[in-house]
Amino acid sequence: MTVGLNERAKGVYVIAVTPFTDTGEVDIASIDRMVDFYEEAGVDGLTVLGQLGEAPKLTAAESRQVVERVLERLQGRLPVVVGVSAPGLAPMRELADAVMGAGAAGVMVLPPWTLRTDDQIHGFYRSVGEALGDTPFVLQDYPLTTNVQIAPGVIERIVRDVPTCVMLKHEDWPGLAKIGALRAASDAGRMRRISILCGNGGLFLPEEMERGADGAMTGFCFPEMMVGVCRLFEAGEREAAHRLFAAYLPLARYEQQQGLGLAVRKYVLAKRGVLGSAKLRAPGPALSTADVADVERLLAAQERRLAEIGA
Amino acid sequence: MTVGLNERAKGVYVIAVTPFTDTGEVDIASIDRMVDFYEEAGVDGLTVLGQLGEAPKLTAAESRQVVERVLERLQGRLPVVVGVSAPGLAPMRELADAVMGAGAAGVMVLPPWTLRTDDQIHGFYRSVGEALGDTPFVLQDYPLTTNVQIAPGVIERIVRDVPTCVMLKHEDWPGLAKIGALRAASDAGRMRRISILCGNGGLFLPEEMERGADGAMTGFCFPEMMVGVCRLFEAGEREAAHRLFAAYLPLARYEQQQGLGLAVRKYVLAKRGVLGSAKLRAPGPALSTADVADVERLLAAQERRLAEIGA
Amino acid sequence: MTVGLNERAKGVYVIAVTPFTDTGEVDIASIDRMVDFYEEAGVDGLTVLGQLGEAPKLTAAESRQVVERVLERLQGRLPVVVGVSAPGLAPMRELADAVMGAGAAGVMVLPPWTLRTDDQIHGFYRSVGEALGDTPFVLQDYPLTTNVQIAPGVIERIVRDVPTCVMLKHEDWPGLAKIGALRAASDAGRMRRISILCGNGGLFLPEEMERGADGAMTGFCFPEMMVGVCRLFEAGEREAAHRLFAAYLPLARYEQQQGLGLAVRKYVLAKRGVLGSAKLRAPGPALSTADVADVERLLAAQERRLAEIGA
Amino acid sequence: MTVGLNERAKGVYVIAVTPFTDTGEVDIASIDRMVDFYEEAGVDGLTVLGQLGEAPKLTAAESRQVVERVLERLQGRLPVVVGVSAPGLAPMRELADAVMGAGAAGVMVLPPWTLRTDDQIHGFYRSVGEALGDTPFVLQDYPLTTNVQIAPGVIERIVRDVPTCVMLKHEDWPGLAKIGALRAASDAGRMRRISILCGNGGLFLPEEMERGADGAMTGFCFPEMMVGVCRLFEAGEREAAHRLFAAYLPLARYEQQQGLGLAVRKYVLAKRGVLGSAKLRAPGPALSTADVADVERLLAAQERRLAEIGA
Repeated sequence: MTVGLNERAKGVYVIAVTPFTDTGEVDIASIDRMVDFYEEAGVDGLTVLGQLGEAPKLTAAESRQVVERVLERLQGRLPVVVGVSAPGLAPMRELADAVMGAGAAGVMVLPPWTLRTDDQIHGFYRSVGEALGDTPFVLQDYPLTTNVQIAPGVIERIVRDVPTCVMLKHEDWPGLAKIGALRAASDAGRMRRISILCGNGGLFLPEEMERGADGAMTGFCFPEMMVGVCRLFEAGEREAAHRLFAAYLPLARYEQQQGLGLAVRKYVLAKRGVLGSAKLRAPGPALSTADVADVERLLAAQERRLAEIGA
Repeated sequence: MTVGLNERAKGVYVIAVTPFTDTGEVDIASIDRMVDFYEEAGVDGLTVLGQLGEAPKLTAAESRQVVERVLERLQGRLPVVVGVSAPGLAPMRELADAVMGAGAAGVMVLPPWTLRTDDQIHGFYRSVGEALGDTPFVLQDYPLTTNVQIAPGVIERIVRDVPTCVMLKHEDWPGLAKIGALRAASDAGRMRRISILCGNGGLFLPEEMERGADGAMTGFCFPEMMVGVCRLFEAGEREAAHRLFAAYLPLARYEQQQGLGLAVRKYVLAKRGVLGSAKLRAPGPALSTADVADVERLLAAQERRLAEIGA
Repeated sequence: MTVGLNERAKGVYVIAVTPFTDTGEVDIASIDRMVDFYEEAGVDGLTVLGQLGEAPKLTAAESRQVVERVLERLQGRLPVVVGVSAPGLAPMRELADAVMGAGAAGVMVLPPWTLRTDDQIHGFYRSVGEALGDTPFVLQDYPLTTNVQIAPGVIERIVRDVPTCVMLKHEDWPGLAKIGALRAASDAGRMRRISILCGNGGLFLPEEMERGADGAMTGFCFPEMMVGVCRLFEAGEREAAHRLFAAYLPLARYEQQQGLGLAVRKYVLAKRGVLGSAKLRAPGPALSTADVADVERLLAAQERRLAEIGA
Repeated sequence: MTVGLNERAKGVYVIAVTPFTDTGEVDIASIDRMVDFYEEAGVDGLTVLGQLGEAPKLTAAESRQVVERVLERLQGRLPVVVGVSAPGLAPMRELADAVMGAGAAGVMVLPPWTLRTDDQIHGFYRSVGEALGDTPFVLQDYPLTTNVQIAPGVIERIVRDVPTCVMLKHEDWPGLAKIGALRAASDAGRMRRISILCGNGGLFLPEEMERGADGAMTGFCFPEMMVGVCRLFEAGEREAAHRLFAAYLPLARYEQQQGLGLAVRKYVLAKRGVLGSAKLRAPGPALSTADVADVERLLAAQERRLAEIGA
């Protein structure tokens, strides 16, 4: 059985997509292939039902089905974090209890977009901690989507007051200074040192590692890039990490477009044989002919660059 | 059995609160008393699971429980509209199908806060229409809460393209011109004449009736005011309607405070013997001593004014 | 000469409109009549170039012209506060220095809409204090317009760190609890007791006075209501204050509509002989026939209610 | 004398920074060096007083001083576009008239953040057209900063109704589809073909050129990249353009961080000998030691990559 999520988590927790068939049904066979693909790419964990997992488009029953299938396929070989963000605490707790009972390692919670002041944000996460009981959770800090800006000092207060907050999914933009501020806070003994895994499609991963991040939690369609960068940093080969990253950057940048990016990600994952269909569930964008031409050009150029650096 | 909601709906569809016990459980006995209270006040319909019904704080199971209890108590004597707003179409349809199967007359849908352009809003409601099938629905236009501004021309397009959109819950602020624009559009034959029931705590009800609204859909703690105003307008006694309204306005204004207002509403409903507890489910505000003093002063003054006009 | 604005300011500082001719030019003759009108109504000060003074529509030269004319007409009999909000500190200081040199008592500063976290807000007002030098200023707290939510604790920090912040224009909504929290903070010695004058069109003025506000800073077209309420509170006649307020409330509520409200205000001020034209400078709304009918009905009913209470 | 800006503008209109001394004064000597630097880099025009030119931090007098110095240094060799965005039409026109009189080629206007519906946006730009008279202007479409989303159909309506709107500064994100939609609209004869120059730090420049953009209007600290990409596209050497772009992308991505990015840009321009000081006027961010380390690492790697491709 998997151990619960804790402050020492590191490496790559890939944000899993949710596979659908062309007619919009949850695609179980593709879930299995996807789990295998991520595992073979060397990730350290999976995060399911995130924003880019199209979680809000699933019914309650489908949400549990997806989680259960992923857990079953993994058989405890890797920890699974489940997004449980909901407008109210009661439905959040209901889903969290269900998935923890099924074997998840922890859950992830996004702040509602109505929060503004420091105290409102702190108060929200204290309520979350109380509602979730013993379940360890990830604070997802994603202002580009939520419009909620969480100052480092507020994260400090949350970490101090809510012992089950064990990880930050760092997705502030720009946000490099925040990583430094949080590491300084724990170095100075003002808060526990929590795990910091970074999002934003990996677009700043090497710089984030330089500042003290523990890894990535995002869903770039070439998870081997993120695994490679994290392992090279672990091995002290920073220069090689930066070089590997640069080879993938043009595509990573393209995939990081808000909204459209998930269609790019699913297109590439389908092309790589992972997904049976590249389709997003409605409402969701689809790639145009011009978009596909961009992606194909980027894939070809990426292959050339990888060959040049011998990766 | 109740007939389905349609374009001819008028009068007062009261936004029902969701009663909780002091410990935060759904309070079934209070639901029954509340249904009776609203019915005795003379309302023409009930709307449950609205934003001010604390819908987002309920689990899926509780949501259905509340709807079923209300329907059971009413035994089809009044139509019930159910709020089914959800971040995705699949969970929205799931709840809508369940409550329509149980006897609801229609559902209500709020636009997600991420919508901006006219086409995005139109596209969203077209998807809603497709997802909901035959179920008649209410377009809830509430920019103060959603930040989504829907121009009259966009409502026109939606009404033209989505035949199951039968009612506007008008809650734009300021919004009197919108009522006039929509009535002009249907008078000119550019769109069906739909039902327009107004929200905003009834704070502009007489002016809204002057512009052609069909009534109110809001939850002011004295529904008899809204019923009285609508009936006086129906009877052509506009002057008396304005006078009745003015007697209740100081409290209506106080209850219309964002966030805190619901605590005021529940306090008064508890004081009037309708609710067993004035408590909101967490997270939610509670009245301070100073707030309660305000409300008691307002209630006393309201009673004096009502006596003066012989109401 | 007028003394500078300080923490002991109280009563009514009316938000002055900016009069324009029908062709959109600044109307000097109407400025003179308006100043006389406000003075005769018994106000304690004037605030010019506020948001509802259409300040952003004026050129730099016009802004100074308006301020100078008001100051000249007043001859120091009443203090004048000038709105100097600007996107940058340099243009803010430039205008502030000019108007203080011309005899203004103080200035008023709105936070830019991009501020979010507590520290950002605090940092902004500290920069404002530094940029303005000795000039006393009013912190304008108006989230409905700016989207910036300032927690009471942040105001505390600003008042502690910025000695020239002498007044809060309280326009949070809902915001009664904030007045209480700030009074508690100064009672407990955690901050200076600053002046709190309330906005929002006077819509909550009696309740704000109950919580410890010092008066009003808003522009309701019957300033005699605000003067009356403040004087009755000063005299301990709270009951009479509430009754006077209720007589004006239906119109005050109507005037408080965002955007349209200023056109209502100018219509009434023109009808009362104060302004030569009710016109707003473009871009700005104009009243429709239906709006005018509403206002006329409200004025007639207000007169009746005032006669009934002998005011 | 420079000809006025028109629909045929293409290539690189660089967004000029505003140089300040270490003590925050406008730095005239650096303006001269900067103009020379941009001209030597081969740009086709300059845009001054943009958002990233720190325009809102300048007084009215300083704004004119900067424009006049740039125009004087250029002696008409390149066209200059001036940002004149202002909260009201009167101050916007005042600045526009002044700079056009001094020899600018056109002006640029950002929509105010309060606009939401299609009609509001269209109405705003129609007013702008009327206020500016004959002055040709650039519609700046920058939702990441303004929160205003302008649908392609709205741009169509503006271009049809406002003949002086000759260029789109395209800075929507994601926005590639918008370029295609606008080109389709002019190909189909539904609107004039206007110039489209793209922003966002050049982060999507090659893909934008593929969709039919005419060039770039942004301020990346290596304008030679943008010039090179545009010229290679002009020469039909698309492959080489994509390769050149990729060599600069890691730094361009880093410079594109909101807020902090301008400090990066000024750091590099100072290092390159263009600016006397890298300082932003207050309030503005400064680079930390860790930020500088990032930039230096990126510059070194960029040099290696450029050597590898022989650029």
